[in-house]
Amino acid sequence: MTTPATQSPTSPTARLMDGSALARRMVEEAAERAALLTRRTGRTPCLATVLVGDDPASVTYVRMKRSRCEQAGIRSRHVALPAATTTAELVDTLTALSDDPEVHGILLQHPVGPHIDERAAFEAIAPAKDVDGVTYHSFATMSFGADGFASCTPAGILRLLDHYGVELAGKHAVVVGRSAILGKPVGMLLLGRDATVTYCHSRTTDLAALTRQADVLVAAVGRPRFLTGDHIKPGAVVIDAGYNPGNVGDVDFDSARTRASLITPVPGGVGPMTIATLLTQTVDAAERLS
Amino acid sequence: MTTPATQSPTSPTARLMDGSALARRMVEEAAERAALLTRRTGRTPCLATVLVGDDPASVTYVRMKRSRCEQAGIRSRHVALPAATTTAELVDTLTALSDDPEVHGILLQHPVGPHIDERAAFEAIAPAKDVDGVTYHSFATMSFGADGFASCTPAGILRLLDHYGVELAGKHAVVVGRSAILGKPVGMLLLGRDATVTYCHSRTTDLAALTRQADVLVAAVGRPRFLTGDHIKPGAVVIDAGYNPGNVGDVDFDSARTRASLITPVPGGVGPMTIATLLTQTVDAAERLS
Repeated sequence: MTTPATQSPTSPTARLMDGSALARRMVEEAAERAALLTRRTGRTPCLATVLVGDDPASVTYVRMKRSRCEQAGIRSRHVALPAATTTAELVDTLTALSDDPEVHGILLQHPVGPHIDERAAFEAIAPAKDVDGVTYHSFATMSFGADGFASCTPAGILRLLDHYGVELAGKHAVVVGRSAILGKPVGMLLLGRDATVTYCHSRTTDLAALTRQADVLVAAVGRPRFLTGDHIKPGAVVIDAGYNPGNVGDVDFDSARTRASLITPVPGGVGPMTIATLLTQTVDAAERLS
Repeated sequence: MTTPATQSPTSPTARLMDGSALARRMVEEAAERAALLTRRTGRTPCLATVLVGDDPASVTYVRMKRSRCEQAGIRSRHVALPAATTTAELVDTLTALSDDPEVHGILLQHPVGPHIDERAAFEAIAPAKDVDGVTYHSFATMSFGADGFASCTPAGILRLLDHYGVELAGKHAVVVGRSAILGKPVGMLLLGRDATVTYCHSRTTDLAALTRQADVLVAAVGRPRFLTGDHIKPGAVVIDAGYNPGNVGDVDFDSARTRASLITPVPGGVGPMTIATLLTQTVDAAERLS
């Protein structure tokens, strides 16, 4: 006769943060607002997507974004440029779109090729149409809590935290990663919500000692399963903004899940929120510009 | 007969970071470069100072900056506007200075009155002349390590740290305060130098537990003697960027000095570095614009 199996002390406990479901709701809302705007003003929100070259992943991303636009009743205008496009040509294209009254939002799919000055390209996007939140202006308005567009992934993360009722004021948020479109802006948004914010990165000494202090831990480092359960304070909220080949996040989901109270899966967590935010911000831009 | 007095266990140990001396050197260097530029191009660096109203402290600050300019052979052009100046009038003034080829740097003394949209005014300063580092563009370039001007106090702090050979990479820097021209940018500059950076502020829970982890502690909170020895890890480098009435910093100098390895005095620490940075950046601007 065998003894009954005891429950594993590392059984999953974290509740999942369902980004797919919330993103669907956001896209529905964006669709309703787009339809209303069209009825009221005769103008339909329009997102210009700009792609340089034919990198397969980039092609797929742009296609996905345009298809989601279509579902939401948002027009998209696609500009496909050859891989050999120069910085000056790309800047001209983006300047023309910035000046075009028919276009409300502009997305430059990035990274662009190494021969292009990506920053110069970003800065050619008018702040009022920067629905992907990549300009200096958008970064600063995010950082200062001023009117402006947010980087889509950071804004999507905040929306997800709000949806799940995660208290931020006075909490310690630790962001692992410091990229211009993810780590840095998400830290600034969390700071704007009165969290105490720590930025960790590749040069951080004793990373685990810092991440284990986090009430909210944001992984934005781009290394598969880089953060494990050992990095996580019991009960922490874990946001995995990583998206590595093979649909693998920056967090080791199985071990993290045994420590966290709330966690985003990959896929189906942060990813869908990014596109939903892009759509929402495109409608915002159209409402303001109309 | 009395026993000999034992040495106090809290005797001062920290070495002082002499901002006055370093600032003097910087002003001398700026003067040499200004003279060289004048000889070579016939153009003397020129800082436009703009003051709205007659707040006594602001009047004093502007006078001090102009007098320091004069010492360094930098021209200054002062624009005094009445207290009742509107946002639109101030924006017009700053736009005209931005367009004026005779002016290389622009300083808007702030805070301006509450009836003025300070941000709108700042944004009227051309980034190439934003030698005080107050525009969105400057904040973003500071944050991303790109070419651009830095906020003067944060840049002065970094210069002071470098001068005293303080290693930043991999160290934990804790910034107390999150203002747009001090706390936020100094954190971004430290992050750009590979420090792990924590932002604390008025909503931070258990401040001392965080500040006691700091290898480098920056006080930028604007409350007299707010941080004491108890907030400081033994051996930490303490930067007091506070400047409260009566020449009092944000750090309680006497208790902090017994714990820190290096500390800035108030006055004579960060303060002089701010003006020296302003002059240096004005010369930078003139060299680039000439």
